[in-house]
Amino acid sequence: MSTDRHYAREFVRTFFTSPTAVQGEDDSAKMLRSAAQLRGMQAPDVWVPDNEDATAPSMREEGIENIIEVVAEHGADFPGEIHPRVVWHREDPATRYQGFQQMLRVARSDTGAIEHIDGFVIPEVGDVDDWKKADEFFTIVEEECGLAVGSLSMSVIVESGEAELAMGDLRTEMGKPSNNLERLFLLVDGEVDYTKDMRAMTPTGELPPWPELRHNTSRGASAAGLIAVDGPYDDIRDVAGYRERMEDNRAKGMTGIWSLTPGQVVEANKAPLPPESGRWLLEVGGEEVALDADGDEQVYDGDEVGLDVVGDGEYALRVGGDERVLDEDELEERLLDMTAYVPSLDDIVDSMEEFEAAKEAGRGAIAMTQATTLVIDGVSVDVSKDRMWDEATYQAAQTPITLFQDVYEHRPDQHEDLEETYGADVVERATTVGN
Amino acid sequence: MSTDRHYAREFVRTFFTSPTAVQGEDDSAKMLRSAAQLRGMQAPDVWVPDNEDATAPSMREEGIENIIEVVAEHGADFPGEIHPRVVWHREDPATRYQGFQQMLRVARSDTGAIEHIDGFVIPEVGDVDDWKKADEFFTIVEEECGLAVGSLSMSVIVESGEAELAMGDLRTEMGKPSNNLERLFLLVDGEVDYTKDMRAMTPTGELPPWPELRHNTSRGASAAGLIAVDGPYDDIRDVAGYRERMEDNRAKGMTGIWSLTPGQVVEANKAPLPPESGRWLLEVGGEEVALDADGDEQVYDGDEVGLDVVGDGEYALRVGGDERVLDEDELEERLLDMTAYVPSLDDIVDSMEEFEAAKEAGRGAIAMTQATTLVIDGVSVDVSKDRMWDEATYQAAQTPITLFQDVYEHRPDQHEDLEETYGADVVERATTVGN
Amino acid sequence: MSTDRHYAREFVRTFFTSPTAVQGEDDSAKMLRSAAQLRGMQAPDVWVPDNEDATAPSMREEGIENIIEVVAEHGADFPGEIHPRVVWHREDPATRYQGFQQMLRVARSDTGAIEHIDGFVIPEVGDVDDWKKADEFFTIVEEECGLAVGSLSMSVIVESGEAELAMGDLRTEMGKPSNNLERLFLLVDGEVDYTKDMRAMTPTGELPPWPELRHNTSRGASAAGLIAVDGPYDDIRDVAGYRERMEDNRAKGMTGIWSLTPGQVVEANKAPLPPESGRWLLEVGGEEVALDADGDEQVYDGDEVGLDVVGDGEYALRVGGDERVLDEDELEERLLDMTAYVPSLDDIVDSMEEFEAAKEAGRGAIAMTQATTLVIDGVSVDVSKDRMWDEATYQAAQTPITLFQDVYEHRPDQHEDLEETYGADVVERATTVGN
Repeated sequence: MSTDRHYAREFVRTFFTSPTAVQGEDDSAKMLRSAAQLRGMQAPDVWVPDNEDATAPSMREEGIENIIEVVAEHGADFPGEIHPRVVWHREDPATRYQGFQQMLRVARSDTGAIEHIDGFVIPEVGDVDDWKKADEFFTIVEEECGLAVGSLSMSVIVESGEAELAMGDLRTEMGKPSNNLERLFLLVDGEVDYTKDMRAMTPTGELPPWPELRHNTSRGASAAGLIAVDGPYDDIRDVAGYRERMEDNRAKGMTGIWSLTPGQVVEANKAPLPPESGRWLLEVGGEEVALDADGDEQVYDGDEVGLDVVGDGEYALRVGGDERVLDEDELEERLLDMTAYVPSLDDIVDSMEEFEAAKEAGRGAIAMTQATTLVIDGVSVDVSKDRMWDEATYQAAQTPITLFQDVYEHRPDQHEDLEETYGADVVERATTVGN
Repeated sequence: MSTDRHYAREFVRTFFTSPTAVQGEDDSAKMLRSAAQLRGMQAPDVWVPDNEDATAPSMREEGIENIIEVVAEHGADFPGEIHPRVVWHREDPATRYQGFQQMLRVARSDTGAIEHIDGFVIPEVGDVDDWKKADEFFTIVEEECGLAVGSLSMSVIVESGEAELAMGDLRTEMGKPSNNLERLFLLVDGEVDYTKDMRAMTPTGELPPWPELRHNTSRGASAAGLIAVDGPYDDIRDVAGYRERMEDNRAKGMTGIWSLTPGQVVEANKAPLPPESGRWLLEVGGEEVALDADGDEQVYDGDEVGLDVVGDGEYALRVGGDERVLDEDELEERLLDMTAYVPSLDDIVDSMEEFEAAKEAGRGAIAMTQATTLVIDGVSVDVSKDRMWDEATYQAAQTPITLFQDVYEHRPDQHEDLEETYGADVVERATTVGN
Repeated sequence: MSTDRHYAREFVRTFFTSPTAVQGEDDSAKMLRSAAQLRGMQAPDVWVPDNEDATAPSMREEGIENIIEVVAEHGADFPGEIHPRVVWHREDPATRYQGFQQMLRVARSDTGAIEHIDGFVIPEVGDVDDWKKADEFFTIVEEECGLAVGSLSMSVIVESGEAELAMGDLRTEMGKPSNNLERLFLLVDGEVDYTKDMRAMTPTGELPPWPELRHNTSRGASAAGLIAVDGPYDDIRDVAGYRERMEDNRAKGMTGIWSLTPGQVVEANKAPLPPESGRWLLEVGGEEVALDADGDEQVYDGDEVGLDVVGDGEYALRVGGDERVLDEDELEERLLDMTAYVPSLDDIVDSMEEFEAAKEAGRGAIAMTQATTLVIDGVSVDVSKDRMWDEATYQAAQTPITLFQDVYEHRPDQHEDLEETYGADVVERATTVGN
């Protein structure tokens, strides 16, 4: 048996929550209504009418009515999936019963809202036995409302140590005949409550980075055929920080992230797509500095790195406060270690096509070379990076392309944006390569 | 069922070991006797008369006698809890039997020492089945000595891969009727032996940082309602390093740490308490530099960051060797990403009170703003950080306050120190907020 | 029961793969033949004729023939162990059947190749139940070929989330009477396929560092008495990067690494051995800079750190852009935090001998002091690092010596290299200390 995915999307970039009912507005469903009409890069892959933390407890009854009404009206045209969040708590049966009732009300309403709803999001889950309780309520809701078993998918927010541990058991639990956990879809980290549950503290009150939690979420998703999504990034004005976080997440296999505003949705929809043009980087003191392309040369004009010719084939390379005299081979080796190339979408498609051609010609492995001329303090040095590509390398490199194709297939509302960014030709080649 | 804690303290900051018997002294119990009389910030939350590694094997018989005598004499007045460490090894039944006998001798002695002993510490545990063997010996000791089942708590030192794995099973094992593992209290990492068990090596012989072990310990503690404590920091003169380690631990939810000297106890008792005054930080090249407060301005006077006005609303910001020309919005965004504020105890209490007032007024989420004026190379830039506070944020921010209140409740001997540091007024407000 | 190892080597430094059959060569076994004749530092601890990814699918039938022939001819003289890799896939029974047949063919051949083969490597494993399928095939192969049960050891490549999770269960699974998993030997990470399986992406296409995977592999190996090996380092010209990776691995308890070329084998065989001479380091901005030894002084001549005498016992210490005025004690504390000493093999042997003498004299713990004079900007500062050594410290420090002794015992072909590097006297003392 392969690790199958039981849902349409292979990737989810964006998980966008909207309050279901806001007090003090003429129309308490105002935010829900505007979110439902987002399109293109502003529209998320998964939209979450949030009847839990984003909505005041006193407004949650009205929130359910708003979901029923707004999803019925706009759901058919919404370009992403719709997964309302209901209330739940591993330590509180009353809350769990409310969550069950909220799902039931949405499913039973005669507006037809449920036809546009892909699933529900369950927060604050605990042990896997707690996940099964939620799953059983989904099953009852489906039965009560004449829906096929498993037609509603279930996503969970991981915000406790026990839920983190539960992700290690999902793969073995999901096959058991006494549950319908195959309905699972997203594993979403909720770092605010997780931080509280772990009783962690930072001097500034910022959330800890929780790299191990994110790894375990991504691994749990991979092992069980689910999709991993990172939690909210509170500092909504810090776009650079949001991007860094997403880059770090992708290196862990976590492609999706929570978005709190349409602006964050735009950033998060674009971030995992390869850039439109390639660039060279120089790593200096732990930070990566983009070099300035000047024709075929890449020019470094910072102060942290210095380079001098000090003799015949002798160079003095200074990195921060550390200066060493190197011969040409040593210099190239050192600079090789410090440089990296970020390929564009076009570059990736090129490399894949090149490997496919080599494979057809009977070669199982070829060397891909990236070469350029670095210029530091006026001194030019040629560097050339080789990487062996075999079938496995090819398949790993394919991930951004598979993502691109998944986006292209499921989000026609973003075609125009993609073509504007990359050009119609590159988009065309990217959607066909590897198939 | 909630994840309950079966003991009095919610937090343990300090785990201080003393040799139980030192050869060549007139009084072999000298160190035990002086430790028993520590008070205030020098006294640990948990004191561990250490009849294992800190005491030579040949002195351990005498060590038990010393524990019996010194704890009987000073135990009633000791301000923290008392948890002697006995010998144990997952791979050696003879050592386990000795550990059992050591506990039995302490419990049976007619000096009444056991009345002041809160539990025992078991080192070198292995699989959870090994933990159960120790637990069974506790149960027998309690039965033999007429103590209620579970009245002695059990703490373990995690210093093997199998013990690390066992922490993932505790939550399910603790409820079983055939054990009394509810007596568990502290999960303490022992990195020296763990490093040996993992056969890890570093060029300098320093211990590896083991971030994953500390995460797994903290998570195991969180999931099972226990308290996580980090292992010894050997370089006792390196106070800055000890503080950094504790800050890193707290970001993982591990609040406690081993202390080898009363000086380390003072540092570790103080470290998790919020500072008496707030401060701004600038992050430069991976390091955080404290800014100098000058009235409402925060002045940076290092060389790593430079700022110039280069045109109308155009700025040149240099960070390390990387200079960029930015407009005002870009500049603010970049600096926002680089700055952070460390709130004082007073600030935290203020914010909590503000959120409580907002909640009472019916608002579920408010923006908390931290604003200041940065001065770099004489150029002033206003920066303002917003963070949305909802109930979950509030509760996460509450952790240092809960810690403070736990310390205040259980450590009257530290009241004077706290009032000297923070002022009686702030201490008074901090002990009542959130209740 | 102790965590026993069921094989001869305690450590494996190098895991060197060779294609079993290369198309277009006169002799398709050419690479296999040359690898089989490597000796000394160029010969790996474990040699892997690779009938999986390194060999084109169309050449794998011929590859098995080549293994049978080349191992029969050269196996008796090869100085390391020989573990061919066969095909396998957790999601494909046809591939698993091929792997079984490949092992059977090698074992059944009448050339006697199997006598020189220590085990087989199984790639692409999944859950522990999948590992058991492979184990069962080993058992059948042994039975069919008249080999004792368990005489062929089994190593696996961990390249999926489910295999990573399986490593947490090995310890409990290995004892069960219905399998022969005691034959397990190496846990080898395969980061290329793991990255694909986790669907991770990096801007440059380089592999993510996967620290948690490597920790979990090392921990799984430690708990089950196995040996952890890191995956291939693709950029074969980046020697500095390869060394950094190995240093990082050793801090995780992962001593071995994959090698793709004899040059990488040399690097990886040498890397875990202590250096021939000690050196002092200064940590500046997250990077460690080696100091220049000048007699008893250690001179720093970079620009990142500056030191001035600014008054009587007052110093201005600048680190990067951050300058502080410190008194002598503060200065020493700060510099202590910034310096480290890398002991040579000779130093380690000295320290161990010193501790052994102290122990014989009845002392359980002694302070080991490392002292030097730092010179920064012409200002001399004495620093002295103390570390308490007890039995546990001694044992942890022993790991590089145990490794050295393991190499010395099993690799006579490397004796000459070791004596050239360290001198015969140090080698002699290093092979006897601690026994």
